[in-house]
Amino acid sequence: MPSPSHSCSPRASHPVPLHEIDEWYDEADVLIVGYGGAGACAAIEAATWGADTLVLERAGGGGGTTAMAAGHIYLGGGTRVQKACGYDDSPDNLLRYLEASADDPDPEKFRLYAEGSVAHFDWLESLGVPFNDSIHEARTNMQQSDECLLWSGNEKAWPFRDLATPAPRGHKVAKEGEAGPLLFAKLDEAARRAGARVQTDTRVLTLVIDPAGRVAGLIARQDREIRAFRARRGVILCAGGYAMDEAMFQRHIPRLAGRVQPIGNPYDDGAGLRMGLAARGAGIHLDDYHITLPFYPPASLTFGILVNAQGQRFVAEDAYHGRIGELASRQPQGRVYLIVDEPNYGRPELDGFELAATEDSIADLERALELPELALLQTVAYYNDHAERGEDPLLRKHSNWLRAIKDAPFAALECSLGKAPYMAFSLGGLWTKPGGEVLTEDGEVVLGLYSAGRNSCGIARSAEGYASGTCIGDATFFGRLAGRAAAAHRAGLSSAGENSKGSR
Amino acid sequence: MPSPSHSCSPRASHPVPLHEIDEWYDEADVLIVGYGGAGACAAIEAATWGADTLVLERAGGGGGTTAMAAGHIYLGGGTRVQKACGYDDSPDNLLRYLEASADDPDPEKFRLYAEGSVAHFDWLESLGVPFNDSIHEARTNMQQSDECLLWSGNEKAWPFRDLATPAPRGHKVAKEGEAGPLLFAKLDEAARRAGARVQTDTRVLTLVIDPAGRVAGLIARQDREIRAFRARRGVILCAGGYAMDEAMFQRHIPRLAGRVQPIGNPYDDGAGLRMGLAARGAGIHLDDYHITLPFYPPASLTFGILVNAQGQRFVAEDAYHGRIGELASRQPQGRVYLIVDEPNYGRPELDGFELAATEDSIADLERALELPELALLQTVAYYNDHAERGEDPLLRKHSNWLRAIKDAPFAALECSLGKAPYMAFSLGGLWTKPGGEVLTEDGEVVLGLYSAGRNSCGIARSAEGYASGTCIGDATFFGRLAGRAAAAHRAGLSSAGENSKGSR
Repeated sequence: MPSPSHSCSPRASHPVPLHEIDEWYDEADVLIVGYGGAGACAAIEAATWGADTLVLERAGGGGGTTAMAAGHIYLGGGTRVQKACGYDDSPDNLLRYLEASADDPDPEKFRLYAEGSVAHFDWLESLGVPFNDSIHEARTNMQQSDECLLWSGNEKAWPFRDLATPAPRGHKVAKEGEAGPLLFAKLDEAARRAGARVQTDTRVLTLVIDPAGRVAGLIARQDREIRAFRARRGVILCAGGYAMDEAMFQRHIPRLAGRVQPIGNPYDDGAGLRMGLAARGAGIHLDDYHITLPFYPPASLTFGILVNAQGQRFVAEDAYHGRIGELASRQPQGRVYLIVDEPNYGRPELDGFELAATEDSIADLERALELPELALLQTVAYYNDHAERGEDPLLRKHSNWLRAIKDAPFAALECSLGKAPYMAFSLGGLWTKPGGEVLTEDGEVVLGLYSAGRNSCGIARSAEGYASGTCIGDATFFGRLAGRAAAAHRAGLSSAGENSKGSR
Repeated sequence: MPSPSHSCSPRASHPVPLHEIDEWYDEADVLIVGYGGAGACAAIEAATWGADTLVLERAGGGGGTTAMAAGHIYLGGGTRVQKACGYDDSPDNLLRYLEASADDPDPEKFRLYAEGSVAHFDWLESLGVPFNDSIHEARTNMQQSDECLLWSGNEKAWPFRDLATPAPRGHKVAKEGEAGPLLFAKLDEAARRAGARVQTDTRVLTLVIDPAGRVAGLIARQDREIRAFRARRGVILCAGGYAMDEAMFQRHIPRLAGRVQPIGNPYDDGAGLRMGLAARGAGIHLDDYHITLPFYPPASLTFGILVNAQGQRFVAEDAYHGRIGELASRQPQGRVYLIVDEPNYGRPELDGFELAATEDSIADLERALELPELALLQTVAYYNDHAERGEDPLLRKHSNWLRAIKDAPFAALECSLGKAPYMAFSLGGLWTKPGGEVLTEDGEVVLGLYSAGRNSCGIARSAEGYASGTCIGDATFFGRLAGRAAAAHRAGLSSAGENSKGSR
């Protein structure tokens, strides 16, 4: 048991020195904090590789944000489903796309992910995660069907389509509606089958650190008691992002704080990140996020044009809603409208979007929106002239989505930041090696500490380039690597043993 | 002396546990790391408030980045110079401007700065820092004269001019050419007069931390030896930003890495930040920076228009070069050109800027730049129509800078990211209270640790809103507060004493 000074809930940013631990309540080779997609995959691998593995989860059951999701996994390079649906993809092509999507593509992680993507798909299937050999071709942010593939990113949008051959890569788990729960159920089964122990209703409070800075265990609240858990080989932090912590959101993403709806499960409060920072791990991309302006479906709205306060277009409207959300949110004063005519409006309900104006002419719409005189008129005329020729020289929206905006009435959907239903979650986290080893700002490994999922910074690190399914793809893929790395850390076994013996 | 395990240069992210210190080489009430603007002002106040103060500086002499600067200090609220030059300003007005300039205006720091700005000016004068009662009215990024005031931010640019009454606030120290050295010389004199000791050629390597996480001193390399310095009341980190560390720049500002010239002194390598992080201080706004596209002088270029790859204008060209640099760098593919006609070109030399094209007509220029057909023609026609009426409905450039672009030849100055001479430095740093107390991600104080200047995150925290002189203003103002807070920390005195005794 920890000493009395820590009986009143140590906080994440105050690691407990090893010498204060009088008694370990429980121990394992590998301790995993958080039982979502990353934690479950880490547990499967750690246990499979022979480590006595214990997962501690704060909620009453596992799942995390993975189990709240639609269940897309961003995979490619030539999966069985991609081939069955007639799409060519290759690891190189996937890598080109991923690299084009990030301003800071960690070379090793991106390469591993591209090269290992097909094998990861096969591994998920081997655990019983089902995928149908089918594709949902419609432009939407989530198919309700059990069809598998979805164009879930910017693959067909310019400039990405010129940088990598477009291929659909959002692999939805075969289930109608939200498939995240099924995905997690299969991971959970596999973890338990592999021998991992799982303890829920267990809130990890902080790490235990030996004098050399090595993570030797952790402190958790369980059954109303403060308990110390020893990690013989390592602790893997898989406790999610920080989107749900108002103060951290304000601190790291102030531009969006209070203007977007955070997405996540209630425990995405950054506790795991704070523990890692307190163990001297570096935080990277803490300012990065995925933001979405979910203005489709209906897909027909893609025939419209997005304009800013200058009446200018600024993004190809056939891009992914995340890229559009990011670019829209950065327009002057965050003012953005979607201009659409009658044939393409057809929105059955507004889903949180408001109509800024409807008018019988573009000139009237321009006035109603208080845009600079002639600005919208000029933009629409230019767009229409070229759309009728199937061209968009300005932003290269695909010709499939080009149609003159000419049939009154005309509508302006309110897409301004703070007014439209933008949603966001954090992408930044602990700086890790591909095996999950947490690094300090000096680039040195924090011994005994690993991280995966949104607790760390993975391949999802750019609002402009995010694609649906990247987080679950990243969390499950690198969760596995972290589980394996921690299990393999036998050197740590003896040194942790010595340290903890010395302190008892 | 530290134990042998640390004799080979401990690194910033590995604090030394107090019990490893066998002997302190030297000690003081307050230890200050770094002797630039922040460190000098911290030293003046700490010593003045009765603390035995020792400053450790890595370079052969003091000055830091402050002494490399033009010597502007962003001050307002009604300074003597503002009044003498006939400008009305008030603390409230200054606060409104500062708040409009930041996406995360720390309420307490911003208020204190606005309310204390006049007194800070008077204090600087009391130390012998000279300011003339004059203004340099021309639009430039630095006056070569010894005139004082400069419009050094976005005060007259829209929307700022509507949010706060415009007032010039860049107060240049009275000296021709670069005045930073004179400013620092006066601060240095004052610090030594107040009794602060200064040791140069002393590279601080890492902090010393007691078992409770309190900063008890530091380890430095001095005279080729590794030496331990005890801080009885506190350590103040004033070691600058991290712009000059390639790895940190890449890690935290990847979008700009390799595409801009970092600005700073060679020791702005983030060592102080890494020390603070390792002591469990939180880093905030680590992704934020000041970026400049120094396309003026000559001011006449402001009559031109900046266009992106869509041939669209995106910023009022009379904004501050930092705001313009930020918005330009975020245009699609970073492509930006300044379009200007013969009467306004007049650039004697290009200062690193290249001509992307010169042509006898806008149509030819459009083709030469490979802009979408008619896009530039339409933009110029729209601009010219309104400019001739003294209006800029699109972006509200001030009518003083509106003049139709019509006299051939026409030039396009290359302003694209990666091609134009953009420069940048980091604005993020340790999260601190106004008194410099460093905070953890949980919002708790790291006992014994303070920070100011670019080692911390101050009032300069936004690329879009930065103004020249903000960094020196912030560093000198909050450096003083940190010096005072550390000197006043008498509670720390006894506890540090106990701890260090216990470990000897």
